[in-house]
Amino acid sequence: MAASLRDKAAIVGIGHTRYSKNSGVSDLRLAVEASAAAIADAGLAPSQIDGITTFDMDVSDGIEVARAVGCGDLTFESRVPYGGGACIGVILQAVMAVATGVANYVLVYRALNGRSGHRFSMGVSGDMITSDTVHYGWYMPSGLVTPASWVAMFTQRYFHETGLGPDALAEVAIQTRNHAVNNPNAFFHERPLSRDEYMASRMICEPLRLYDCCQESDGGAAVVVTTPERARDLAQKPAIVRAVAHASADDQEQMTSFYRPNIARIPEMELVAKQVWEMSGLGPEDIDCAVIYDAFTSIVLMQLESFGFCAPGESGAFVADGNLSVGGRLPTNTHGGQLSEAYIHGVNGIVEGVRQIRGTSLNQPQKNDHTLVTSGVGVPTSAMILGQA
Amino acid sequence: MAASLRDKAAIVGIGHTRYSKNSGVSDLRLAVEASAAAIADAGLAPSQIDGITTFDMDVSDGIEVARAVGCGDLTFESRVPYGGGACIGVILQAVMAVATGVANYVLVYRALNGRSGHRFSMGVSGDMITSDTVHYGWYMPSGLVTPASWVAMFTQRYFHETGLGPDALAEVAIQTRNHAVNNPNAFFHERPLSRDEYMASRMICEPLRLYDCCQESDGGAAVVVTTPERARDLAQKPAIVRAVAHASADDQEQMTSFYRPNIARIPEMELVAKQVWEMSGLGPEDIDCAVIYDAFTSIVLMQLESFGFCAPGESGAFVADGNLSVGGRLPTNTHGGQLSEAYIHGVNGIVEGVRQIRGTSLNQPQKNDHTLVTSGVGVPTSAMILGQA
Repeated sequence: MAASLRDKAAIVGIGHTRYSKNSGVSDLRLAVEASAAAIADAGLAPSQIDGITTFDMDVSDGIEVARAVGCGDLTFESRVPYGGGACIGVILQAVMAVATGVANYVLVYRALNGRSGHRFSMGVSGDMITSDTVHYGWYMPSGLVTPASWVAMFTQRYFHETGLGPDALAEVAIQTRNHAVNNPNAFFHERPLSRDEYMASRMICEPLRLYDCCQESDGGAAVVVTTPERARDLAQKPAIVRAVAHASADDQEQMTSFYRPNIARIPEMELVAKQVWEMSGLGPEDIDCAVIYDAFTSIVLMQLESFGFCAPGESGAFVADGNLSVGGRLPTNTHGGQLSEAYIHGVNGIVEGVRQIRGTSLNQPQKNDHTLVTSGVGVPTSAMILGQA
Repeated sequence: MAASLRDKAAIVGIGHTRYSKNSGVSDLRLAVEASAAAIADAGLAPSQIDGITTFDMDVSDGIEVARAVGCGDLTFESRVPYGGGACIGVILQAVMAVATGVANYVLVYRALNGRSGHRFSMGVSGDMITSDTVHYGWYMPSGLVTPASWVAMFTQRYFHETGLGPDALAEVAIQTRNHAVNNPNAFFHERPLSRDEYMASRMICEPLRLYDCCQESDGGAAVVVTTPERARDLAQKPAIVRAVAHASADDQEQMTSFYRPNIARIPEMELVAKQVWEMSGLGPEDIDCAVIYDAFTSIVLMQLESFGFCAPGESGAFVADGNLSVGGRLPTNTHGGQLSEAYIHGVNGIVEGVRQIRGTSLNQPQKNDHTLVTSGVGVPTSAMILGQA
């Protein structure tokens, strides 16, 4: 049975900071700025916020963010584990809270000095791996110490099984970059990517080149969730959460599920897909545009297959047709994604998904009844479908 | 409006490890042992578990626990912040998950090598304070670096305002200890506490003596939550969650909310109390027994007032009448509490609350229609009322 959360909540406010490589301020300041902006965007007063949730990995305490923003009593607070995989998990938390009446207005935030502070690319260290690390002992001696190195393993196998190669990755990188060109808050603002530039970029971990990897960024993003009924009285056109789900799958590890029979697919995302289709009553054909978690280009390809936008192994053909661009079958990451706007652990993608539904994206898809927003993979993951009120 | 979670879930399995001062095994092993025991107690197979939640502070990853226990796919995972304040917050998470259909059987676990590993009494250090620590800079130079020192501040003020003193603390310590005497898994098994012994025990931080402070323990405890309907097919008499709530209050800090106008009360627990009374339709007069979070004796006194078992300032008279003992008005911490059984961050108290409802406590209260179980205070906190099916 799919959870009974269809149309039980709406995203009513979005906010973000300037995205940069050196914010010059604390993580807390970024969280507070983004949160205050989201609350103001919704037309709410901070004192109306009564729930708060973020990533397990966020370093700013919920109560510190709440106090600095000017919230009062809270009746809901939680965290969701596993880095980018949490990015729609926090929306699930907010939806559950407002659907059950545990809170009326839930603030979701994520902020990080991901470039000027701790960088994921610097390898596994104490503050990244927070618990049982024993199985990393098998991979680290072989140099598998960064997200790029782990995802490269899955990508190699995916190429081996599907016959795909660099061309498919290049399409994702180039089409995504093009969306950043007119986005003043994107790192790659006014800097399109040519195929030659892509092919000449240095190899990070075969087959992933520099432009297959998302950025490391400083910044914060936040949204506010309430019920569709309360949304009617607020400032913005709501983005209704038609379906939302979170899952981990059998033999799940944190980024290193290498011992599964097939490592060229994402079973946890397939489980999420099954749930959101079941809960929404929709299918891939109903989705007009998307924000697909793009920590690396290859995971965009794999997720297109997880959700059935194309058959397994056919993502290369799908993206070759320009289908990720505005005017294509599935305009995707219209903000420039994490590859080209900023890496805010996917929450900047939630903000863009809401813009797509509102019709206010800088690269607005023409048809926008439903958008799919997904989370980081390689870990327990999550996704949602946003729709019109 | 109170959240609509009355009678939406039940605790159907309980489990725990041996409690000790030196487990000799990993935190993960403790978590897995307790979890497997809770699942077996419920009459479930591990593969039926599809949700998992724990404390933000727990060092064992949910997916690692799930894999070691033998669970498969999961559709729900979360964490709740702020140490012992999370202890019923995790139950709220589980209740929300089963009430909305996001998961059917949620495992709640907490395990720690709290004595042989990291000890809270050793003072604030990197792995305890996970985020914005700036305000600790005001207290630490004065020696306020441990939970005992922070709670002593609140207790001094509470004594100043109410005229209470060591006698009230002694009653809590002695009556709680007496419940451990027949509990083979309690550190103070067969070791009752005399008034002389209590008064002779060394001062930790005025007015808190050694026996006012909970232990530091190694161990794990776990429970399984499902819907009341599913509970009917399982092995044990269910403990129905009649109400559950979580709250932080205005100007909340993490253990150090010293700048509030009145620091002799617990506003976040009063907010939790208001919610559980409203949700359940019950009042203090309907509660037959309790598990009241006893990291320190003084917070038991203050919580009796938060929930209205007595008027503000009258907890001393309440406990002097032996009302925390079996046969008294409110048999409390019948397992020996965290003062005398073990400090498993309150989850051993949830296990005992379920026993009280089942009628299987080693110190079974005669009347057991409803029990109250509370969480750690000084942080965002939580509580629930358990009742008969």
